[in-house]
Amino acid sequence: MVPINQWIKIKAPATVANMVCGFDILGFAVNNPYDEMEMRLVSRTTDAAGNFNQASITIINIDNYNLPTDPEKNVAGAALLAMIEECTLVDFSKIGFEVKINKLIKPGSGVGSSAASSAGAVVGANYLLGNPFTKDDLVRFAMNGEKVASGVKHADNIAPCIHGGVTLVRSIFPLEIIALPSPTLFVTIVHPQIEVRTADARSILKQNVQLKDAIKQWGNIAGLVAGLMKGDYDLIGRSLEDVIIEPIRSILIPGFDDLKKACKAAGALGGGISGSGPSIFFLSKEKETALAVEQEMIKLYKGIGLAHHTYVTTINQTGVEIEC
Amino acid sequence: MVPINQWIKIKAPATVANMVCGFDILGFAVNNPYDEMEMRLVSRTTDAAGNFNQASITIINIDNYNLPTDPEKNVAGAALLAMIEECTLVDFSKIGFEVKINKLIKPGSGVGSSAASSAGAVVGANYLLGNPFTKDDLVRFAMNGEKVASGVKHADNIAPCIHGGVTLVRSIFPLEIIALPSPTLFVTIVHPQIEVRTADARSILKQNVQLKDAIKQWGNIAGLVAGLMKGDYDLIGRSLEDVIIEPIRSILIPGFDDLKKACKAAGALGGGISGSGPSIFFLSKEKETALAVEQEMIKLYKGIGLAHHTYVTTINQTGVEIEC
Repeated sequence: MVPINQWIKIKAPATVANMVCGFDILGFAVNNPYDEMEMRLVSRTTDAAGNFNQASITIINIDNYNLPTDPEKNVAGAALLAMIEECTLVDFSKIGFEVKINKLIKPGSGVGSSAASSAGAVVGANYLLGNPFTKDDLVRFAMNGEKVASGVKHADNIAPCIHGGVTLVRSIFPLEIIALPSPTLFVTIVHPQIEVRTADARSILKQNVQLKDAIKQWGNIAGLVAGLMKGDYDLIGRSLEDVIIEPIRSILIPGFDDLKKACKAAGALGGGISGSGPSIFFLSKEKETALAVEQEMIKLYKGIGLAHHTYVTTINQTGVEIEC
Repeated sequence: MVPINQWIKIKAPATVANMVCGFDILGFAVNNPYDEMEMRLVSRTTDAAGNFNQASITIINIDNYNLPTDPEKNVAGAALLAMIEECTLVDFSKIGFEVKINKLIKPGSGVGSSAASSAGAVVGANYLLGNPFTKDDLVRFAMNGEKVASGVKHADNIAPCIHGGVTLVRSIFPLEIIALPSPTLFVTIVHPQIEVRTADARSILKQNVQLKDAIKQWGNIAGLVAGLMKGDYDLIGRSLEDVIIEPIRSILIPGFDDLKKACKAAGALGGGISGSGPSIFFLSKEKETALAVEQEMIKLYKGIGLAHHTYVTTINQTGVEIEC
């Protein structure tokens, strides 16, 4: 266990869920952007009337997003509460967590902002406690943060945020996460500054899909997994096609079709909507291509006068990192 | 090129298509049963009236299935005709193929009997001609045999029969086949002696599937590909689940549900309908398990008084083989 009052620093990476054909199952972590957090254990004492000097979880926002600090309403808090409930190692009437959160991943951007806070908090807490929990436990706790954020306990962003790399959520009940090896891939992300509500992005999906489309999709999913594991860039590129979700959701994102054409023409292997949007990502084999893709993104959104932010980064292979 | 009149021997393996969750995309070849064929090049000459002494393709059946010998109606013949049409290397007014076919894979059993004849013929012909064609070409030619057999130019059985091992048909148009590495797997097959017409098995499928089922299916497909490539038997086992096709098609196969329960209880990793049936296959990590699974199959079909044939074999890693 880390001594009481000693701060640790945490880097929690942004993540891309719904990796094109891999809706609800495939995601990956990126090296930029990431959230910065600090955490420490604190002593809890009671006064003569039995009142605690300190809550079991204290959230301190050091950014300007004004997110809730009530642990039950804060994604990091909800994740920690789930951990506390299962942790028999420590008497949480005597010890609590203090968490400072500096969100560098803008909430609502579609690159796993809430997942970074939840995952960062439970990985940090686990480290402070001497790592009693497995990564699968941590994913499970952090999913409670996603429930606070979006109403659904999904692992699409949590899994890659904690494991790093590309992850497959093979099954939610029971939870099963498979880390997939991947070759070096450069990632270009654009975040057009519009709001796409996850609930809207989900409600426009059709409940039924044509069997022939499902077959195309699973051919691509199998191809993508094989391409990643073989390090076959061309196969990855050919497999990055989504015939089911993207044609519907892309209508919520201005300029999507033109952007996709331009990014592919610039040499990107492929890409699509990150999570439920509005961010869009493209993968490239070379850094130069990823930078050229960024220029296409900037050109397009400047052209239609939409504020935006871009990142050129790589797949993060470590997941949440702790610095002491 | 192999000299005129010199016979070569061909072994064309049986294949399992629709590998549980991998409907229409994943299949594999097995070492038993297999078709035996012999092929040679023959000289074609014309008499004074211009009549050929010999057809460009002569099919000789040396089994008792009484399959058509007219090349256009025979699956091997149709595959060879497609090859001849593209082959500019040889003057087929001067040279022809003679093909002897001994079918050891019973037609209609659901383990790629027609694919073995088509694939065997084109791999043999390619060898006789000095291997001018790629495996992808050969798959394309052999698919014409499947059209004769079932009305559809599918590659589900042809791909593993020619490539060996486990194959992914990522896309049909354009044709793209990916060979997937796999660990040693024992295969137990039972062929209950009933007829399931491919057309019937296809017509009962629903044209639409629920998105939530499709997501489960593609989680399993991704898991199966990852499990095969990692050599992770447990992951393979957990991923061998089909929530879309099997619940519908299994009603055509007497005893399917009980058989599945018994085979899994005997230790099989998983399995399901081979192709469109009626054969059923199960995969096991150990030979002893595969033999125990066979006993369960025999017990069940003896119990319901249905004639059947069983095989215990392994995944064939070579595809069609030539012996000189």
